[in-house]
Amino acid sequence: MVLLTHRQQRADRILDAAARLFARYGYDKTTVDEIAREAGVAKGTLYLHWSGKEALAEALLYREVRRVIEDFLQRLEADPEGGTIGSIYRHSLLATFANPFVRAVLTSDNQVLGDYLRRLGPDYDQIRFEAARALVERMQAAGLVRTDLRPEAIAYLLTMLSLGLASAGTLIPAAIAPPPDEVAIALADVVQRGLAPEGGGDREAGKRFVRAYLAEVIRRYEQLRGLRKDADDGQPSDSG
Amino acid sequence: MVLLTHRQQRADRILDAAARLFARYGYDKTTVDEIAREAGVAKGTLYLHWSGKEALAEALLYREVRRVIEDFLQRLEADPEGGTIGSIYRHSLLATFANPFVRAVLTSDNQVLGDYLRRLGPDYDQIRFEAARALVERMQAAGLVRTDLRPEAIAYLLTMLSLGLASAGTLIPAAIAPPPDEVAIALADVVQRGLAPEGGGDREAGKRFVRAYLAEVIRRYEQLRGLRKDADDGQPSDSG
Repeated sequence: MVLLTHRQQRADRILDAAARLFARYGYDKTTVDEIAREAGVAKGTLYLHWSGKEALAEALLYREVRRVIEDFLQRLEADPEGGTIGSIYRHSLLATFANPFVRAVLTSDNQVLGDYLRRLGPDYDQIRFEAARALVERMQAAGLVRTDLRPEAIAYLLTMLSLGLASAGTLIPAAIAPPPDEVAIALADVVQRGLAPEGGGDREAGKRFVRAYLAEVIRRYEQLRGLRKDADDGQPSDSG
Repeated sequence: MVLLTHRQQRADRILDAAARLFARYGYDKTTVDEIAREAGVAKGTLYLHWSGKEALAEALLYREVRRVIEDFLQRLEADPEGGTIGSIYRHSLLATFANPFVRAVLTSDNQVLGDYLRRLGPDYDQIRFEAARALVERMQAAGLVRTDLRPEAIAYLLTMLSLGLASAGTLIPAAIAPPPDEVAIALADVVQRGLAPEGGGDREAGKRFVRAYLAEVIRRYEQLRGLRKDADDGQPSDSG
């Protein structure tokens, strides 16, 4: 157990080092050598955890997204008004903006994860849109979202908003942009007015929906990771 | 007068040829020679109208944007419900989508006007955001837009929506995306619910505002063009 914890701490330290270098120099220009040096470990040690830069980037992205999800859930549960589509949108934006790495990925013109994200390519955009459509359909069934617009149309609007948020963060200088939290609150208010059903939606049903949905997303992702052993970030299945 | 009309017709024919080639091969890969050939005029004739490809692209973009503006105004005036922020948004999107060239510019990953648009660069994004902020402030004063959010925040949302619309058009395959008109109508409805003041806004004031604003935009642009004579697309001031 102590050994595992030590491994996990070392993995986290290496991921922290990679996050700093990716944010500063970008994914493409950062080498495994530099990550090992920044983390203060031998290159061979790094390879005990991951097969290479790509597997490491995947583990880093997963760790940070998990942190954003945890933060988001805490904010949502703590909000007495939480559970509407607007509050879900607001807290997910605030949690995203509060994570320096994820925020850098979203507002740095794709340099931070460069080739890694580009390799996901056009198929990824299509899969993401289909996933958004399926999610909207379920939110409509759960009474969180108005049902007089087709899920395709609402998914398109929500995809536009994420893509637009990323582009605006890249293109509009921070000095003239309003603070991120003001953007999140205004945007969430517009989403609530624009997409909630009559009456604003059932808050408790909304919270239940979010908990169940995110648990499912995490479970599926963990299954995928289980299938691809080389992406493991701490406990190789061959106990190597 | 007959001579002027002939010049104007020839200019339009050359611009049509350029629009076809830019849409097919992109701005960067299209040469002045090819445009002249496609239009069936001598290269020297083309230079009677414009100093080069950049001036021609500017004249083309201006002509097409003017067409979109005219189409938008006709749609807005013809709509008995027209004049709210939502209807302004809806008709401007429908007019934009109905123009093949402008639509191609917006949904082709910037290839259509390639270097021409890139040369406008970061300053352009900043100027555009400042213009959006000033416009929102005036729409708030005219009673078209709610005043409990700062103009900066609303301008940021509207900028996100335009950027997001362009990215979504590029990234989401048309085969799985909802039809553009459905997107325009859904988006306009969300904008109306999200950004209109209590009661929906004064429609007649809205129409007056739009007419005055667009007339001013066109007047200012014509002044700018008057200052840069080589961008003239029909009547050179030296009567050449």
